[in-house]
Amino acid sequence: MVFMRFRPQLIFASLSRSPKPRTSPPPAATLAAAAARRRHSTTTAVSMAAPSEDALRRALAERQAAVDAQAEAVRALKAGGGASKAEVDAAVEALKALKVEAGAAARRLQQSVGAGPGGAAREEMRQAVVNTLERKLFYIPSFKIYRGVAGLYDYGPPGCRVKANVLSFWRQHFVLEENMLEVDCPCVTPEVVLKASGHVEKFTDLMVKDEKTGTCYRADHLLKDFCKEKLEKDLNLPQEKADEFKRVLALLDDFSAEELGAKIKEYGIVAPDTKNPLSDPYPFNLMFQTSIGPTGLSVGYMRPETAQGIFVNFKDLYYYNGQKLPFAAAQIGQAFRNEISPRQGLLRVREFTLAEIEHFVDPEDKSHPKFVDVADLEFLMFPRELQLSGDSAKLMKLGEAVSKGTVNNETLGYFIGRVYLFLTRLGIDKGRLRFRQHLPNEMAHYAADCWDAEIECSYGWIECVGIADRSAYDLKAHSEKSGVPLVAHEKFSKPREVEKLVIVPSKKDLGLAFKGNQKMVVEALEAMSEKEAMEMKTALESKGETSFKVCTLGKDVVITKKMVSISMEKKMEHQRVFTPSVIEPSFGIGRIIYCLFEHSFYTRPSKSEEEQLNVFRFPPLVAPIKCTVFPLVKNQEFDDAAKVIAKALTTAGISHIIDTTAISIGRRYARTDEIGVPFAVTVDSATSVTIRERDSKEQIRVGIDEVASVVKQLTEGQSSWADVSKTYPAHVGPQGDQE
Amino acid sequence: MVFMRFRPQLIFASLSRSPKPRTSPPPAATLAAAAARRRHSTTTAVSMAAPSEDALRRALAERQAAVDAQAEAVRALKAGGGASKAEVDAAVEALKALKVEAGAAARRLQQSVGAGPGGAAREEMRQAVVNTLERKLFYIPSFKIYRGVAGLYDYGPPGCRVKANVLSFWRQHFVLEENMLEVDCPCVTPEVVLKASGHVEKFTDLMVKDEKTGTCYRADHLLKDFCKEKLEKDLNLPQEKADEFKRVLALLDDFSAEELGAKIKEYGIVAPDTKNPLSDPYPFNLMFQTSIGPTGLSVGYMRPETAQGIFVNFKDLYYYNGQKLPFAAAQIGQAFRNEISPRQGLLRVREFTLAEIEHFVDPEDKSHPKFVDVADLEFLMFPRELQLSGDSAKLMKLGEAVSKGTVNNETLGYFIGRVYLFLTRLGIDKGRLRFRQHLPNEMAHYAADCWDAEIECSYGWIECVGIADRSAYDLKAHSEKSGVPLVAHEKFSKPREVEKLVIVPSKKDLGLAFKGNQKMVVEALEAMSEKEAMEMKTALESKGETSFKVCTLGKDVVITKKMVSISMEKKMEHQRVFTPSVIEPSFGIGRIIYCLFEHSFYTRPSKSEEEQLNVFRFPPLVAPIKCTVFPLVKNQEFDDAAKVIAKALTTAGISHIIDTTAISIGRRYARTDEIGVPFAVTVDSATSVTIRERDSKEQIRVGIDEVASVVKQLTEGQSSWADVSKTYPAHVGPQGDQE
Repeated sequence: MVFMRFRPQLIFASLSRSPKPRTSPPPAATLAAAAARRRHSTTTAVSMAAPSEDALRRALAERQAAVDAQAEAVRALKAGGGASKAEVDAAVEALKALKVEAGAAARRLQQSVGAGPGGAAREEMRQAVVNTLERKLFYIPSFKIYRGVAGLYDYGPPGCRVKANVLSFWRQHFVLEENMLEVDCPCVTPEVVLKASGHVEKFTDLMVKDEKTGTCYRADHLLKDFCKEKLEKDLNLPQEKADEFKRVLALLDDFSAEELGAKIKEYGIVAPDTKNPLSDPYPFNLMFQTSIGPTGLSVGYMRPETAQGIFVNFKDLYYYNGQKLPFAAAQIGQAFRNEISPRQGLLRVREFTLAEIEHFVDPEDKSHPKFVDVADLEFLMFPRELQLSGDSAKLMKLGEAVSKGTVNNETLGYFIGRVYLFLTRLGIDKGRLRFRQHLPNEMAHYAADCWDAEIECSYGWIECVGIADRSAYDLKAHSEKSGVPLVAHEKFSKPREVEKLVIVPSKKDLGLAFKGNQKMVVEALEAMSEKEAMEMKTALESKGETSFKVCTLGKDVVITKKMVSISMEKKMEHQRVFTPSVIEPSFGIGRIIYCLFEHSFYTRPSKSEEEQLNVFRFPPLVAPIKCTVFPLVKNQEFDDAAKVIAKALTTAGISHIIDTTAISIGRRYARTDEIGVPFAVTVDSATSVTIRERDSKEQIRVGIDEVASVVKQLTEGQSSWADVSKTYPAHVGPQGDQE
Repeated sequence: MVFMRFRPQLIFASLSRSPKPRTSPPPAATLAAAAARRRHSTTTAVSMAAPSEDALRRALAERQAAVDAQAEAVRALKAGGGASKAEVDAAVEALKALKVEAGAAARRLQQSVGAGPGGAAREEMRQAVVNTLERKLFYIPSFKIYRGVAGLYDYGPPGCRVKANVLSFWRQHFVLEENMLEVDCPCVTPEVVLKASGHVEKFTDLMVKDEKTGTCYRADHLLKDFCKEKLEKDLNLPQEKADEFKRVLALLDDFSAEELGAKIKEYGIVAPDTKNPLSDPYPFNLMFQTSIGPTGLSVGYMRPETAQGIFVNFKDLYYYNGQKLPFAAAQIGQAFRNEISPRQGLLRVREFTLAEIEHFVDPEDKSHPKFVDVADLEFLMFPRELQLSGDSAKLMKLGEAVSKGTVNNETLGYFIGRVYLFLTRLGIDKGRLRFRQHLPNEMAHYAADCWDAEIECSYGWIECVGIADRSAYDLKAHSEKSGVPLVAHEKFSKPREVEKLVIVPSKKDLGLAFKGNQKMVVEALEAMSEKEAMEMKTALESKGETSFKVCTLGKDVVITKKMVSISMEKKMEHQRVFTPSVIEPSFGIGRIIYCLFEHSFYTRPSKSEEEQLNVFRFPPLVAPIKCTVFPLVKNQEFDDAAKVIAKALTTAGISHIIDTTAISIGRRYARTDEIGVPFAVTVDSATSVTIRERDSKEQIRVGIDEVASVVKQLTEGQSSWADVSKTYPAHVGPQGDQE
């Protein structure tokens, strides 16, 4: 998967407008490195109202200068002694007015850079959600009685049910509806697999150590924190310094260890806890390493993603599917990343559930028969052009985005649409969901196109689903490493005559000429396109030699005629053999759930107005429990009725609990709202009961034998609350909410 | 969990009849060791028709002796020269007859010890199942293109669906129906948790290394293989040798490293692959070790069971449940065991899915309100008395087993009943399912009672679910290590006066008397029961001193009056504070699924009788797909009808596939039977279709608009095949099975 290094970051139009496109194939060694890197490192570009922030900063600087000038004037007036009291007073008043203006400018700037009241409100809202989540055991910090482990969380009872509901809907929406081949592979993975995928070499973050205590920090985090703090807190920062820090923030992800180290030295950044000096940055592999079997010789890792389990099974799955393309495989499972210093609570954890799809498709035909079903969807899209021009995301029709080429192909577009439907049906707010296209410098060189479903929450825009057209990269990597061809076949109805380019490098002559570099020259020759090869052939035939750029060497070499033979040969072919492209939607289930919690949460005042009541407005699909049953007061008659209703609900397959706690019905409603139960049945007679809807707090009266079927219709979506409100009488009675 | 060291093993009546019961508390150090050991090491006792095998062995020895004697006689006759040809011929004929008899005796013995045709048939049946499972991708050896890793398997598409169905039913049957609190904790676990549970110290197997190549073997496996091979292949084994090998097999699990090493030396056992000498046995910890965070200083392990995640959350869960007992918590998740050399294919793997329940209960009240619901169930039970007397499992009524005290308490009995219902509803054959009670020497000293649900398959009787009353052991262990009291409270309606035993050892005097052993004496004194303490008090008061057995020292010591004060004190108590007992049903999901595959598999001849057709008779609940739709021949009309039916099935929530492959309908039926699809809809007209039941191969004719509802009724159990056969006309037509 492409998924999931979350690095919120400021990218400015001026910086990103002309990213250097990769025009020629990069050197082979860097290729692998970049491949692995791109795979694991994505940038979250945040569209900024940058000009206005710059303007605010300039305005503040002007006001500050005015304040300083006026203060100087006041001092001069006072010191000179020649000025009247009225003159001095007027000058002081003017100074005060200027200070007020400067204060207002500072506040505007603060709001703009996110450290002001807006940021505080977000922080407060997050605390309210997280407190409720932890108090109601949606989450529990793991191993809490042993003081926990950073980056590990348990799902408690209601959280666990929400997760099960989300996964069950995922299976329904993707696996069953699309007839995907689901697999379930182990987490323990031998080294060879993750060497092929590039993780062993490149799945790293740069780390620095406190030179005295050995405490570890992510180097980019320290630099980022430093720059952000300067930008947010130091309002007198000169414009050129502010620009520099912004540039650093924008380039952070592309910094080498040396560049990061140099910046840390230049800014004098020290260990935050001790103020001790820091080591130079060095790469730390984020995989949990272990050893398979008893000898200690066989290195293994806990998988950092589930995708590899699918790729290595491609051959079997292709045969299982009757050797037909396209088909999709899917997997839900745990993944592991040994973060250096986990931050951002539930969003950046060391173990998490991924749900990944690998849709294998003929690279020459990426159309999708069901694309029409999603073509009319309209939602916020953030293509790279808008990001580069400093605009924000825009409502676009998916069909148009594909037909205009904004989205690379129909299959990619189809999955974007399906992901949109998945997330919004779960209850993600459409206004805080956007699909952001990767910028050229974020994308792996082999990728055809990548879009992230980003959800806005109190931490900013969070990448929750990555949808990437990864072309043939992964299958090719495993083919090469394992020696097992992971390819598809297209049988021709009758044999076709094809002209094939045949390039035969003379290894002996190349070896004599290039010694240790021979291999790289051979590979570069073999990788020539038909056009390049034919040009070389012409040149060699006319001049006997030609200059040739070998990217892996970073220079041009001279190729002579005897070093390579190039020809076009005619052959009869009965089939086309090719490596399928893969389109990969990859879901961070925990992140989606966390964002869903934030989007579903709200508070309302209690009747007494003394406290705020917390509510999660989960749709029934997601709600941990669909229905609570409350006997209004404790008596045998009501208890019996509650049991009859509970039995009918069980038969109807509706999850529910009976709450007979001896507290007021209003308190019990509040308790049920707090874990997002959509419907409450209150037993206040032996023949009929009330059903209360969580968000409107409206109640209807329904006969006991109808309750289960009404709740079933409501939770399974056959009827809306408005529908049943028309059928059944409203109840406005003494028992009610405590608001 | 108690679960899961599968060691099939021969326990004979003669050996087990008088196991040494643990009458006095074992020494404290050994206690912890034994606790951890018992927790992780269970013995699978197999009831044997031992006497008949002994008789067969004796009979064979007699026949062999007769053959030898007659051969000697023939030689003597020939050598003597005095015998007539007729005499010699007669003697030779007699020898031949004796040889035939001896051969027959050898075959009978071979069958009895399992190496003969019976064993071969089991082996063949297993191969047929496993071949089908791997060919249809129920399982795939993980990382196959890299030549795999022993003990790691993927679930392929149909296996994955079966697993999802089993887990979904488990959630329905246990979590939802009993309102359990499900949690979901990480696999990565810090060392401190697994130190408290005893895993770090004691979750080990004994290992030997090939002294030249370093290849590792499980020491007990080598010794077991040696003994079994001798018993099975060496038919001339003297009776006393056979008895010795059997004794070794029976005691294998209790051998110390030294005892195992001595036997390996004594028998001259060498490395099986190289014949090199072996190292002495030493313990190898079976947990996958890793490191949490970047410093390398924080040791972590991949959890070997899910139970600990629940225990450490006890306090929060107890509060979540309104501080009421009993309640149950549950968890489904991956567990990891780094087996030394995994054998037995899919039963002994290095990573597997566990589903565990921890039911917390007041140790003074283990009744269960819903026990009546299961009391009338009758199934094979194998209490320890039957095992010790050499009998086999017997049909018993659960209610009687509890009322007679065979099963320790109602709650344990309730879960045994629920597990029985769970397994049989999945399709486990009742005749090959038994509940076996742990023998005293298998059980942890703290456990009140343990029963394993064992399922018979081609590998013998396999422990698939462990159901243990573990008393307060786990919560106490974590209370001690973490310092957080994991206790429950019972508030008294009015304060009660209680007499409490108070034992105050004088550490100073004990230290002077016992030096380094002081701690053990103190602990033994504090651990006295009320009866023991009051007896000591009387003795000290009358005689001034008394003899006292300190188990941890393995001897008696003399306690004098000043060394300890013993008294009964009266106190008013407002509540009772106690550590709950835990009853733990622990399910090895992969093992259950594998046994289910074996129990569901059968073959039937094809029409042409040239081949066997494979069938899995999964109940609809488990079947990976509920229904296939086959257009009989390829035409637009049938394709359209198939699509209409598919849409109706989707709406009804029935998983299905349309198979339009251009092969005969018989072939397509065979293909669908092979993955256990219960119903096939064949579209042979535009208005009505046939529905075929997999096992009877009967077909009925149903109108197109009724198909989905009929299949829904069948798969959800509202109607049986017999029911719908009465309602709809049978179809006997040209399109049919290829048998």
